[in-house]
Amino acid sequence: MSLRIAITPGEPAGIGPDLVIKLVQKSWPVQLIAVVDKSLMEQRAAQLGLSVNMIEFDPSQPATPAEAGSLYYMQVDKGGEVTPGVLDEKNGLYVLETLRLASEKNMDGTFDAVVTGPVHKGIINRAGISFSGHTEYFAQQSGTADVVMMLATEGLRVALVTTHIPLEYVSRAVTKERLAKVASILHHDLQNKFGIEQPKVLVCGLNPHAGEDGHLGREEIDTISPTLQMLNQQGMNFIGPLPADTLFQAKYLDNADAVLAMYHDQGLPVLKYKGFGNSVNITLGLPFIRTSVDHGTALDLAATNNIEVGSFDLAIREAIKLATEKAQNS
Amino acid sequence: MSLRIAITPGEPAGIGPDLVIKLVQKSWPVQLIAVVDKSLMEQRAAQLGLSVNMIEFDPSQPATPAEAGSLYYMQVDKGGEVTPGVLDEKNGLYVLETLRLASEKNMDGTFDAVVTGPVHKGIINRAGISFSGHTEYFAQQSGTADVVMMLATEGLRVALVTTHIPLEYVSRAVTKERLAKVASILHHDLQNKFGIEQPKVLVCGLNPHAGEDGHLGREEIDTISPTLQMLNQQGMNFIGPLPADTLFQAKYLDNADAVLAMYHDQGLPVLKYKGFGNSVNITLGLPFIRTSVDHGTALDLAATNNIEVGSFDLAIREAIKLATEKAQNS
Repeated sequence: MSLRIAITPGEPAGIGPDLVIKLVQKSWPVQLIAVVDKSLMEQRAAQLGLSVNMIEFDPSQPATPAEAGSLYYMQVDKGGEVTPGVLDEKNGLYVLETLRLASEKNMDGTFDAVVTGPVHKGIINRAGISFSGHTEYFAQQSGTADVVMMLATEGLRVALVTTHIPLEYVSRAVTKERLAKVASILHHDLQNKFGIEQPKVLVCGLNPHAGEDGHLGREEIDTISPTLQMLNQQGMNFIGPLPADTLFQAKYLDNADAVLAMYHDQGLPVLKYKGFGNSVNITLGLPFIRTSVDHGTALDLAATNNIEVGSFDLAIREAIKLATEKAQNS
Repeated sequence: MSLRIAITPGEPAGIGPDLVIKLVQKSWPVQLIAVVDKSLMEQRAAQLGLSVNMIEFDPSQPATPAEAGSLYYMQVDKGGEVTPGVLDEKNGLYVLETLRLASEKNMDGTFDAVVTGPVHKGIINRAGISFSGHTEYFAQQSGTADVVMMLATEGLRVALVTTHIPLEYVSRAVTKERLAKVASILHHDLQNKFGIEQPKVLVCGLNPHAGEDGHLGREEIDTISPTLQMLNQQGMNFIGPLPADTLFQAKYLDNADAVLAMYHDQGLPVLKYKGFGNSVNITLGLPFIRTSVDHGTALDLAATNNIEVGSFDLAIREAIKLATEKAQNS
């Protein structure tokens, strides 16, 4: 099998380029193609005291993996210098073009997945382009109405019904429609992208103790239970709503394929605690495979060599796993 | 040092009596006094195939610890039979009397702490007595206006600004006043009950990513930050608000004495995950020491001997530790 996986290192003033350069000092079993400005990568490698042999990507050639120390690239001109640690509005336009190209080349089948490094939303917006995040951008580029954010670490996957909204709005945002859509996408992608025939998913309640029979909130009774019942009648397997404080224990998790949490800070603290901060962000519902680091640009660490590659490494490995699964099933 | 620690096993149809009987099969370094109906304990012991030698508590005698297999008791008449696993409104009145007596005898100094087993709120309320929980009951009995719920396991303590309220109301309930009170009680009790001279506490934001500079909610800017600043100016050490999903990692937790979470399902999932479900609930702000199990009555397991004593064991050990600390400082 010959897989091609695109990498967008993200904000060039941050640690994204550094992580990619460090990660290709070892060899990989698939062809990795960075969507970047070649000279920017060479410059950063020099600043890190590392070398990277940049090889221009040619889609007409076989998808041969590069040797350790080499990296395929698809050129996007940055134009002008990048100073590590210093944001510049021009970086925003460059980053967006790398994402657009990676998305286009995933849609047309050139690539089998995309792994994204950290971007800086603020600087893209200051460049005059409305940008609320990778997930939303890829959804829009691919004409996808609903996507789901899932984080994964060894032994645990957590998908979210709501993501980056103020806590105050969470209760209203957890509607039957949203829950049914998210749960269906999760079920579908666990089957089709992860190769799990009969996915079993534990679902958190919204309120403490999952509402304690309505004494601590009625969303479980009015919204969550009837929706899960409806989905289970269609042959899915959603268990819950369960109290979030007792659900995350090995005796329950070991028998489940994923947890569906109602909101960000209900689901992610355990996941990141369990994964020692190394988790991978996977966008479900897209027509292509996309994984991502779970951390930010860390501007102050760019070009310092004082960085940990764990999450980016995991994101690439997860993309390879998913792309392999997909290739075997197609 | 001779300490006396009261134990209320809680709902008699549940596993509370079983846990106490199992736990006193080993000896303890302090005098444990169950506030119970003696015959009920003897009956449950027989059902479990265990023996327990019940010794009537006499406050005029020295606080000698009992030998393994023996248990001091202070009598509260149950009246009538208890069927394991079967709730009965009469149990509610009995449970409440054990709590009242334990509270009174802690207030007057007879006991140095109380450890509570699981109660069934519903059956106490059905007995015609409004009861929303141990914490509230002890607060009322002792004339305390504000108490704080803290859970602890090996290496982690988590206190909560809000506890058992619907998620929808959390944002409104996190006021400057409530936060300042909870944080002050936490600081005070970490100093005075836990013997930590300069407590350092990590504080969660309310919103995802702690609001991301106001983009995901303004409570951090309007409420949390100014309150923490005010408290720190008084010499306390509250760090935050920090994103809850990244705060719970060893590199941060190892340098802190506690975490202050804004709500139930933000703070407790990691704690219970870390503690394998064995954590102890400690009520801060009361004029006496109170610890508790973190689980329910498990009616279906009463008298089966198929129970795990972990949390009750931890609750007793934590009470001993706190009472010892208090005795040494007084």
